[in-house]
Amino acid sequence: HNILVINCGSSSLKFAVIDPESTQVLIQGIAERLNSPDALLKVQPLGSQAIPYINHAKAMAAILASLGDIPIAGIGHRVVHGGEFFSASVLLNEDAVAKIDACRALAPLHNPAHVTGIRAAMENFPELPHVAVFDTAFHQTMPPHAYFYALPYDLYKTHQVRRYGFHGTSHRFVAEQAATLLDKPFTELQIITAHLGNGCSACAIKNGQSMDTTMGLTPLEGLAMGTRSGDVDPNLIQFLVEQTGRDIRQVTDLLNRDSGLLGLSGLSNDMRTLLEAADNGHSRAELAIDVFCYRLAKGILGLAAALDRIDALIFTGGIGENSAPIRARTLAHLKVLKPTLDHDLNSAHGRHTAGRITTTDSALTALVVPTNEELVIARETQRLLQP
Amino acid sequence: HNILVINCGSSSLKFAVIDPESTQVLIQGIAERLNSPDALLKVQPLGSQAIPYINHAKAMAAILASLGDIPIAGIGHRVVHGGEFFSASVLLNEDAVAKIDACRALAPLHNPAHVTGIRAAMENFPELPHVAVFDTAFHQTMPPHAYFYALPYDLYKTHQVRRYGFHGTSHRFVAEQAATLLDKPFTELQIITAHLGNGCSACAIKNGQSMDTTMGLTPLEGLAMGTRSGDVDPNLIQFLVEQTGRDIRQVTDLLNRDSGLLGLSGLSNDMRTLLEAADNGHSRAELAIDVFCYRLAKGILGLAAALDRIDALIFTGGIGENSAPIRARTLAHLKVLKPTLDHDLNSAHGRHTAGRITTTDSALTALVVPTNEELVIARETQRLLQP
Ligand SMILES: Nc1ncnc2c1ncn2[C@@H]1O[C@H](COP(=O)(O)OP(=O)(O)O)[C@@H](O)[C@H]1O
Ligand SMILES: Nc1ncnc2c1ncn2[C@@H]1O[C@H](COP(=O)(O)OP(=O)(O)O)[C@@H](O)[C@H]1O
Repeated sequence: HNILVINCGSSSLKFAVIDPESTQVLIQGIAERLNSPDALLKVQPLGSQAIPYINHAKAMAAILASLGDIPIAGIGHRVVHGGEFFSASVLLNEDAVAKIDACRALAPLHNPAHVTGIRAAMENFPELPHVAVFDTAFHQTMPPHAYFYALPYDLYKTHQVRRYGFHGTSHRFVAEQAATLLDKPFTELQIITAHLGNGCSACAIKNGQSMDTTMGLTPLEGLAMGTRSGDVDPNLIQFLVEQTGRDIRQVTDLLNRDSGLLGLSGLSNDMRTLLEAADNGHSRAELAIDVFCYRLAKGILGLAAALDRIDALIFTGGIGENSAPIRARTLAHLKVLKPTLDHDLNSAHGRHTAGRITTTDSALTALVVPTNEELVIARETQRLLQP
Repeated sequence: HNILVINCGSSSLKFAVIDPESTQVLIQGIAERLNSPDALLKVQPLGSQAIPYINHAKAMAAILASLGDIPIAGIGHRVVHGGEFFSASVLLNEDAVAKIDACRALAPLHNPAHVTGIRAAMENFPELPHVAVFDTAFHQTMPPHAYFYALPYDLYKTHQVRRYGFHGTSHRFVAEQAATLLDKPFTELQIITAHLGNGCSACAIKNGQSMDTTMGLTPLEGLAMGTRSGDVDPNLIQFLVEQTGRDIRQVTDLLNRDSGLLGLSGLSNDMRTLLEAADNGHSRAELAIDVFCYRLAKGILGLAAALDRIDALIFTGGIGENSAPIRARTLAHLKVLKPTLDHDLNSAHGRHTAGRITTTDSALTALVVPTNEELVIARETQRLLQP
């Protein structure tokens, strides 16, 4: 019952063959810099191969060829944006692919690439079931007061302007894992999850459903991230156009690519680099980390408006799993929730072991839980294959 | 010791003569629609007078003439933006006026009008002391992690891009009043204030200092307001430019003037109208109120990251003072702070009496405290006149 998981981005195509029961990865790889002279296909355990100017369809064929005789029961496609069409994973047919295509205005870099990847995979494996798993689907349970912007209502009707949220598979996965760790039913818990990777978002989950999240129409809203600003004053865009002579596209690019940890520190978007630099007295690295942790704490507290109580706070993602100091500094801004950090547990748990990082008598329970988005996609795909 | 308080906007000029000790208003009025054929000077208790095309300087002269022989000890000017120059009210001289003028890029509608008004008043009353009281000054105590955006650092150095905050005189005034009501020293309390008028902002105050606030570079950031969107996904601006064919200025205007309660309801920016309509089954008025209260609760909780505990939550401004249902609905989203509303007290207190609206055993103490920005300006002016 191996599942092939495919994540087809604008210039890259990641894949992994996973046994969703054992969680074992049989083979995985990435085709990157597609459509460029430097295009490259890397497959573990097979090795690397330069294939200049290879496109999405040909990369897909090469990947599928590389699988050899590993049996595949189904293919799970990661899709960034499902708009309001999809509130759960879906078995793909022409209608579903057309709907994913219809969301292209909402995710112009991602959805067209997904459609290309899905079509190529369907052509190569017409007899296999294909499933789409959406970053947005889990958040479709948000109530209107959480997903409506305070904008003219017509923008929602005509242009689907609303808050969608992302990282849904990760938020759900780590919240379910937390429920197991806490030995409570997922459907009775009230949890806040913080997914901190290159992109960062937090989510309020009540009785198994997403009630609110920090990302919105696009993955730029909310927390400070690696290169993304998160929230700014909406007047800032015009202010920068007027004051710097950049056009709106350049300003928007600046907010997406040159901001966040990278912009503030002037050094790197990599949290490891910043923590090291701050230790060596780099004051702007220190500032970037400060802003990151404070904004995260604000985001977490704001989401508490969607809950009656907070049974657990979960850290995950590259930063959330690996960085004990970031977890500690974030809790330091959550004094109103009276957390008591257990420094030993905070150092002991992380990427390799999930577990509690606060003391047993802490008013706030905080956990670290490693995420595994590929595994969620494999499991979702398997679930939809069952009759 | 009467103080003349002047609030000189882009197309209007408000004034009041106040005795800061008795808090009595001796005379007040407004010159509005300046530089238009419909320009009008209204003075209480004198009456109205049409003066077509009157400008700021002439309106100032007419207002000063209308004061008759009421003795004036000093003039207090409300100034929206003090940038990083002013962390307190200031006795005006040429240098200070030049600095207010230098902040014009940050408040292009307001600061040039303030400078015009200040110069006109100084010419008419050269012998009187003039004081500027800033909306931003109280928030200059915010720590860097609260005032830095996650943007390239250079934008701060070159274009003064940072969070400033507004409504500072109101936040400080109601927090001080609350300290008196609670019979505790202002400098030992940790308070969140919510100023809810046409513009809305909340502020975290610790030991007498503003630690964070929801407005930022301009008064558009943060909460949902009468016609302003508050926070949106920063990618929304470019999305709307691309999808609607509007240019960036039109989109920015839409966020400032056609959004908030007005945009969502399609009905009004006036909370009274919306509450009435919602009672009569208007579903979009209901949605607008829902979004307003939920966003306010999120804003309040987010600010708690700046505090160790919340000694009191204060409601003020036209909506905060007058609307018991809005206060109740906001508290309903603050369950994690365990407030217990006292319905009788919530109905009894408001515009005319400050007081507690939660029960004595409520874990969260909430108060309503009427604001009085003119009185603060009069008192600040008087304070600076003392040798
Ligand atoms: N030991 C560590 N300490 C701090 N940050 C770490 C550590 N290991 C990885 N990270 C950070 O994790 C982030 C990447 O997270 P990841 O979840 O892998 O990203 P993506 O969102 O691309 O999946 C980077 O900022 C990286 O610096
Ligand atoms: N009784 C009331 N119930 C609800 N809202 C009210 C009531 N009275 C006034 N308001 C609201 O107060 C807001 C204006 O607040 P105000 O502080 O006067 O504005 P400004 O920010 O212009 O000073 C309007 O939305 C108005 O509807």
